[in-house]
Amino acid sequence: MSDQPAAADAPSNPGPGESSQPAEPSKSALKKAQKDKEKAEKKAAIKARELAERQKKEAADAADVSKDSYGELPLCGSKDFKPTGTPRANLSASDAADNEDKEITFRCWVENARVQSAKLAFLNLRQGLDTVQAVVAASEKLSKQMVKFSGNVSTESTLVVTGLVKRVKEPIKSASIKDFEIHITKLFVEVAAEVPLPLQVEDAERPLPSEGVGEEEEKQDESSGRPLVTLNTRLNNRTIDLRAKINHAIFVIKSGVCTLFQEFLSQKGFLLVQTPKILGAASEGGANVFELKYFDRPAYLAQSPQFFKQMLIAARFQKVMEIGPVFRAENSNTARHLTEFTGLDLEMEFQEHYHEVMAVLEDLMLFIFKELNARFKKETDLVRSAYHVDEFKLPESGKVPRIPFKEGIAMLREAGEELNDYDDLSTPQEKHLGRLVLAKHGSDFYTLDQFPLAIRPAYTMPSPSDPLLSNSYDMFMRGQEICSGAQRIHNAALLAQQMRTHDPPINPNGPGTKDYVDSFRYGCPPHAGGGFGLERIVQFWLGLPNIRMTSLFPRDPQRVVP
Amino acid sequence: MSDQPAAADAPSNPGPGESSQPAEPSKSALKKAQKDKEKAEKKAAIKARELAERQKKEAADAADVSKDSYGELPLCGSKDFKPTGTPRANLSASDAADNEDKEITFRCWVENARVQSAKLAFLNLRQGLDTVQAVVAASEKLSKQMVKFSGNVSTESTLVVTGLVKRVKEPIKSASIKDFEIHITKLFVEVAAEVPLPLQVEDAERPLPSEGVGEEEEKQDESSGRPLVTLNTRLNNRTIDLRAKINHAIFVIKSGVCTLFQEFLSQKGFLLVQTPKILGAASEGGANVFELKYFDRPAYLAQSPQFFKQMLIAARFQKVMEIGPVFRAENSNTARHLTEFTGLDLEMEFQEHYHEVMAVLEDLMLFIFKELNARFKKETDLVRSAYHVDEFKLPESGKVPRIPFKEGIAMLREAGEELNDYDDLSTPQEKHLGRLVLAKHGSDFYTLDQFPLAIRPAYTMPSPSDPLLSNSYDMFMRGQEICSGAQRIHNAALLAQQMRTHDPPINPNGPGTKDYVDSFRYGCPPHAGGGFGLERIVQFWLGLPNIRMTSLFPRDPQRVVP
Repeated sequence: MSDQPAAADAPSNPGPGESSQPAEPSKSALKKAQKDKEKAEKKAAIKARELAERQKKEAADAADVSKDSYGELPLCGSKDFKPTGTPRANLSASDAADNEDKEITFRCWVENARVQSAKLAFLNLRQGLDTVQAVVAASEKLSKQMVKFSGNVSTESTLVVTGLVKRVKEPIKSASIKDFEIHITKLFVEVAAEVPLPLQVEDAERPLPSEGVGEEEEKQDESSGRPLVTLNTRLNNRTIDLRAKINHAIFVIKSGVCTLFQEFLSQKGFLLVQTPKILGAASEGGANVFELKYFDRPAYLAQSPQFFKQMLIAARFQKVMEIGPVFRAENSNTARHLTEFTGLDLEMEFQEHYHEVMAVLEDLMLFIFKELNARFKKETDLVRSAYHVDEFKLPESGKVPRIPFKEGIAMLREAGEELNDYDDLSTPQEKHLGRLVLAKHGSDFYTLDQFPLAIRPAYTMPSPSDPLLSNSYDMFMRGQEICSGAQRIHNAALLAQQMRTHDPPINPNGPGTKDYVDSFRYGCPPHAGGGFGLERIVQFWLGLPNIRMTSLFPRDPQRVVP
Repeated sequence: MSDQPAAADAPSNPGPGESSQPAEPSKSALKKAQKDKEKAEKKAAIKARELAERQKKEAADAADVSKDSYGELPLCGSKDFKPTGTPRANLSASDAADNEDKEITFRCWVENARVQSAKLAFLNLRQGLDTVQAVVAASEKLSKQMVKFSGNVSTESTLVVTGLVKRVKEPIKSASIKDFEIHITKLFVEVAAEVPLPLQVEDAERPLPSEGVGEEEEKQDESSGRPLVTLNTRLNNRTIDLRAKINHAIFVIKSGVCTLFQEFLSQKGFLLVQTPKILGAASEGGANVFELKYFDRPAYLAQSPQFFKQMLIAARFQKVMEIGPVFRAENSNTARHLTEFTGLDLEMEFQEHYHEVMAVLEDLMLFIFKELNARFKKETDLVRSAYHVDEFKLPESGKVPRIPFKEGIAMLREAGEELNDYDDLSTPQEKHLGRLVLAKHGSDFYTLDQFPLAIRPAYTMPSPSDPLLSNSYDMFMRGQEICSGAQRIHNAALLAQQMRTHDPPINPNGPGTKDYVDSFRYGCPPHAGGGFGLERIVQFWLGLPNIRMTSLFPRDPQRVVP
């Protein structure tokens, strides 16, 4: 297609073929001719103006020594886009040091850009958790136009930048790379961000105003005077919110906990399994379960992989683990409940005593804590410093405090709490016990063993030492439960009996229970296990005020979007 | 409490205190005395019989030199159970060799047990994928009673066995440990299996009779003459079915594929993420989606993590991966469809061309195949040999065939298939193409690139070379699709336009789409990714006839239990 605009084809002057047959025009024809003429003149004027502008721009371009060094790139993947093949650098303090005085090209995004003067612009550029200061300075080789363009790039745009890595004399406070800055030679906007942003990323970096859910009152940050954006506003704009470094750090740690969980257990011979999330019948009592339409019948979402992981032990898989979503239709609007969260589950046969399994669970968590400190210190420090959270204390002996439930009750009583031997602990009592254990044993992590039978699920093995107790345990971080586990009953007759006498009773021959109970008829070995809440581990490791911060797109009774 | 039975307290002879006050008895008292006497005599007779039996048993026990070396253990975890602290050995060929002529104690279960003679019993014992032959031979130190007890243990019972590891002269065909057998010295039934079993594990070892689903006709195995148990029967008794070695091998490999997927991508810097499975609105068109009751409103199960993993790229997580359940309400009753399966998903930004991402996907799969051969050869061979499946061929060059869709169409046409340039391929055509590619390139694994735009999702980036094509790709194993992927549109305006003109059209401002589309307004970098079906990778790697075999508890339109 020609570059000539379509307007140029309009018949402002009759063509040669038309003028060869002159004829007296009618009145209406004259009127039309007049109109056509006016139209043509208007078009000619527009054309002339466009031409003048184009020429002016071309002249400016000709004068702009940097005209090929900045601008907007066409959409990547489109016809106009030509790959350059230029190697792309990483942005980090060590990469910067390696490239001192060299020119590098890298993708980054704009934390902010500002024009300092006609000859100078500054940008803060980010890649991952790293930020660097960049300078665009006018010179013989770099035009003022480019300075102006660069300083006006919208915040959060994605760029491809080329520049020299230069050491600075004074450390740069505002960037994570403090000893180097980038002297930009080329700057292309790869993807422009629209303005205004629905949420400023720097506002998402600041700690949450309060623990509350649905807290709508906007407060101010005391030091910066900027608004403290509520959790709801952040979650409504989660894609922007998640860009905050503090959020990146949280999810790097969450990914790390998963990886460490698997790494430790794989080495112990655990098999990674996937059990169904759609169930033909509500299994564990029927309360707090989401119902769905499964073709022409009802079905239910799994509240845990409990029955299935035990059936796999019955199927002779000696040690199994699963990482997967669990669904709880609990209408709990608290800072530590989600309706969908990630279960870290494991189940294993043991040889003679369920404490063999507790030892595996304790060693597992000690491994995770140790490796979080070793591999994710930067991320941990970044988050804890924002929330002024204490270090997570582990026992110097390396031995996890393992406290019989009865002893826990006694400690609480001694500290003034009123409760009986077989009472369940309230959340405040759990937190109180956490403080007592920390004071006595110097550990933020501990296990309570031998819980009262009446407050545990029907499949829990009663304790041989006291029929009112059970071979079951919970694990706590900073006084809050992160894991519940037990030896399970591996005998069908005893299991059925316990289900029938449970409060509320469960029918062992029901559609959701019969296959489960039957699987213990054919030689299932003794076994125990536990289920951890991944989000809680992350929340309490970091000392975060709200569990929603540890879920990418949290689900609670009020929220199912985005 | 005394050991003396309560019956001994009955007044068969009046006690000294009673005889000190004689008195004339009444008629009714006489009658009563007569009755009491009869009762007492009966009780005495029972007591005498019990005593005789007890004495006989005690005599037998006294004569039974092995009486402390066999029997049934009480329920582990119960009051009577005393841990022994005896170290437990593993059962494998190398462990056996290490323990030659030594006595070991191990837990195992009974494949079968038989009494050969009054003095000799044989057992086949299993632990994991290993089996060993065990002998119970009467001697001065080992009673005939123990031989009888051992040979009559029910199949699938769990045992704790102590015995000497002895080298044999002739390799034992029926066991995986061929050069050693166990000379049993102690045998305890830890958990007895009920009889009869609803399914024999040895029947579950045999290949499936046919590809059919719901195939009810029982066939016979030609060599053994035993019934070929249908898939439905096996799945109805899945806990027993899964005990088969062939099933253990399948799920060891499945666990392996997950681990290898994560291992490779972690090293490349991918973050493991968890995206929500409960959605507030059906996102991808609304078809084939399960609806659930979410408190007082409807919600939906995620058909893929597609929207979320892209939103995470927009949130500047540069590379993300997820392993999680995906739910499809498709009424497809075929050998390769499930309503719930495991998605291996990944998404990453790329620098200049989406082929950067395809290269990662291809390298990922080559790594998985190579490591499956290295780490899981035993399991792979075990399954493939049962189904007479060919080795999985990989290109000798190490380069995965990457075939433009158009070229694939041309190959099929040349081979006699009738189809147009922009037609989708049917399943038989895909399989046909797989054979053609294998013949031409020597590879069971390959990629088709540049699919027609019209048959791809609305978020697919159109191709710069042909507006009817797109920057999208599928990957195939043995001619069947295991992965679908593409460059995604990272520009909100273009995405909205493509959604509106898609067939069927999608509203870009709908409750399930607006947040997604909006996330591309603020500088999202170019990105591409793909989603693998974990079960399909396992199915086609092993050459299995039905995908249900690769799911622990498969879900299809007909099946939601167990």
